[in-house]
Amino acid sequence: MQFQLTEELIEQVERFVEEQNDKALQTLLNEFHYADIAEILDELNLEQAVYVIKLLDSETTSDILIELDEDIREKVLKNLSVKEIAGEIDELDTDDAADIILELPEERQQAVISEIEDESHKAEITELLAYDEDSAGGHMAKELVKVYETWTVAGCLRRIRGQAQDVKRVHSVYVVDKEEKLIGRLSLKDLIVAKSEQKIADIYISNVDFVNVEEDVEEVAKIMAKYDLEAIPVVDKNEKLLGRITIDDIVDVIKEEADKDYQLAAGIIQDVEAGDSILELTRARLPWLFLGLVGGVGAFLIMEGFHGAFNQYAVLFFFTPLIAAMAGNVGVQSSAIIVQGLANNDVKGSINSRLLKEMLLAALNGVILAIFLFLFVWAYTGAFDKALAISISLVAVIIIAGLIGTFVPLFLDKRGIDPAIATGPFITTSNDILGILLYFWIAKMILGI
Amino acid sequence: MQFQLTEELIEQVERFVEEQNDKALQTLLNEFHYADIAEILDELNLEQAVYVIKLLDSETTSDILIELDEDIREKVLKNLSVKEIAGEIDELDTDDAADIILELPEERQQAVISEIEDESHKAEITELLAYDEDSAGGHMAKELVKVYETWTVAGCLRRIRGQAQDVKRVHSVYVVDKEEKLIGRLSLKDLIVAKSEQKIADIYISNVDFVNVEEDVEEVAKIMAKYDLEAIPVVDKNEKLLGRITIDDIVDVIKEEADKDYQLAAGIIQDVEAGDSILELTRARLPWLFLGLVGGVGAFLIMEGFHGAFNQYAVLFFFTPLIAAMAGNVGVQSSAIIVQGLANNDVKGSINSRLLKEMLLAALNGVILAIFLFLFVWAYTGAFDKALAISISLVAVIIIAGLIGTFVPLFLDKRGIDPAIATGPFITTSNDILGILLYFWIAKMILGI
Repeated sequence: MQFQLTEELIEQVERFVEEQNDKALQTLLNEFHYADIAEILDELNLEQAVYVIKLLDSETTSDILIELDEDIREKVLKNLSVKEIAGEIDELDTDDAADIILELPEERQQAVISEIEDESHKAEITELLAYDEDSAGGHMAKELVKVYETWTVAGCLRRIRGQAQDVKRVHSVYVVDKEEKLIGRLSLKDLIVAKSEQKIADIYISNVDFVNVEEDVEEVAKIMAKYDLEAIPVVDKNEKLLGRITIDDIVDVIKEEADKDYQLAAGIIQDVEAGDSILELTRARLPWLFLGLVGGVGAFLIMEGFHGAFNQYAVLFFFTPLIAAMAGNVGVQSSAIIVQGLANNDVKGSINSRLLKEMLLAALNGVILAIFLFLFVWAYTGAFDKALAISISLVAVIIIAGLIGTFVPLFLDKRGIDPAIATGPFITTSNDILGILLYFWIAKMILGI
Repeated sequence: MQFQLTEELIEQVERFVEEQNDKALQTLLNEFHYADIAEILDELNLEQAVYVIKLLDSETTSDILIELDEDIREKVLKNLSVKEIAGEIDELDTDDAADIILELPEERQQAVISEIEDESHKAEITELLAYDEDSAGGHMAKELVKVYETWTVAGCLRRIRGQAQDVKRVHSVYVVDKEEKLIGRLSLKDLIVAKSEQKIADIYISNVDFVNVEEDVEEVAKIMAKYDLEAIPVVDKNEKLLGRITIDDIVDVIKEEADKDYQLAAGIIQDVEAGDSILELTRARLPWLFLGLVGGVGAFLIMEGFHGAFNQYAVLFFFTPLIAAMAGNVGVQSSAIIVQGLANNDVKGSINSRLLKEMLLAALNGVILAIFLFLFVWAYTGAFDKALAISISLVAVIIIAGLIGTFVPLFLDKRGIDPAIATGPFITTSNDILGILLYFWIAKMILGI
């Protein structure tokens, strides 16, 4: 029963499209879930994909459009007329409809909006477009089931049959007072087990979680994960019920956030996928690589500055890659733990206590590693003073690298900047330079260069 | 309405515990969601946390126990008797109950199981304990609402009132035939809008997603995210309904998986948090650091091998940190994109086509960066041949690093090994060494050293 995207299936679809065998195409595709059809379309060329979109009915294609790869969706939308896009918008839930409209170039947005047939649908979408993309408002849908506290259970069930046509997953039924303020909730289960003549006011649960429409959506995700919620109502500052966010959208937010942090840690600036073009991938990867290049030139200049020491202390220079690599590795580890801790709300206590802990940790790791290094250098070169200089430098460099890796994300976080940018190449490059500088400075002191 | 974990609140709870003011404690804590009480207990010392757990009723404390930080829960469980733990188990859903039992030392597990009062609860938990931790069976719960196709809607609703006591969130009602085989589903909404005398067999939806009990739970997460599911039934190889997995547990799986990959990329071996002890953090971080040290020694030996070239070509040695850093950065970027692509099922096409794409990408990036480097070195040293050698080496090193960063995760993935281990220090260290080796080899060829 699990869908398999095979070469044969793709070829079959392509063949039907080339032959314009509409009947066979519809019979074949109507068996599949819209998410699977979207996967198939991701593999077709643009013409074929657009052909299928225009062939299938709007109710199916609107869901398919949402599931398509972003870049492909952009191209497909370019090939649909304003009226056709509006036709898809008519079938979508308000949150998905708003997302699609925002992906269009500004000139087309107004044109599409004006073509939306259902006036109340148009008004709701327009309201959603006004909210910030990263806020709860930017992720909520207007579709929900709402009942007034004055109704009875029987009246409720009757009206739900009506309202629930538009709502895919009901979860909780929200209870409001006559000013539309959210006062509580009920589950369908509660309604089923209650007696028909009971008043909603007597049976609803007043303890209801909600978020403000301006709340950051990452905070919303944390709340929903923490309390195991599947949907959360969104209210304005007067607690008036505005919409709701469902867990499937939050799952997407969590995955995108994790992907973004992972890419930042690898030094990739914008959201790219393995399937993107070489030009797009270059644009995303080159900036951080350039930073690395600049850092490498910095390291060169530092070493050049100590050139005079060379002949007698050549071995020092041969250990610079080791020192730089260790500084980089320690910095990456420290920053990863802090960034993850901040994302999971695990980081408590003051910055100072955390820095102290990191210093002790780095000192412990550094001394253990330095002992091994000392023994190796002493055995290899026979020079006790050089082995000592290199090992002591290693400990110092590791401690400093750990402190920087811990401090920078915390500092950025306190200033409201995403700490995840202080991972990856940013940390490795700065730690490389600082490490090499520190290394030669300490060596100079110990060896009297 | 959002819970704030303040110093004052923690102190207040601590004070009530010290005074053994049970009434005040219960009044205060009963206002909070169990996830919030767990956050408070994470901040108390062990004695105080255990005091609160023993004070509150099992229905609340069982949920709190699940939400506690793993390490704290372990210590709390040590301080509870076998009977007390069984009392908590009685209140938990089967999936959470099985998880708690698995966290106990083996000797205690049997003792706790034998103390479970409800025989059917005990049987269900015992069944779950047999499944692999990382499979669907290891994450499913036995609690679900199941109806037979021969029932009527009215009979259904009547029995649901009974079954649904134990099921926190109903989502879909699963329809089975008389052999207990899963044949379809219904939502509560469907039941409400249907007429009472209709037969289930006439109204159920036969198109139901399900997973096999032995399926990897990460695959289950992908399926649920792709089809926007909130719960998925789990079946055996004969499609007999065994249990179900709900989206809240999958959200936890997705977050843990993302955290684990992120830590692997930073070179952290086991699951640690910012709040863990220095010894635990050292154990997780030291192994990869040691690998980095070994790599650094390797780099030293390579450079030492070319020592003779030093006097005339000192500048070559001063650029080794740059070469090593670029090799590392490119490798990390490539591997990150591939690992993420594999996790999101974005990687299609053959390995060869992907390697070719990476080679072109690396060549493009490498040439752009090499041009800048060439101009700098030529301007700084006035030596055309040295500038050329260094720049050409950079291009070669970047191409090789990109290919390794792309190939290794793909290779591991095809062998069924988690590709995420081929990120972070593993890639940076091996690329550092290969980069330096390649650098000197090319320089040797071009400059005739």
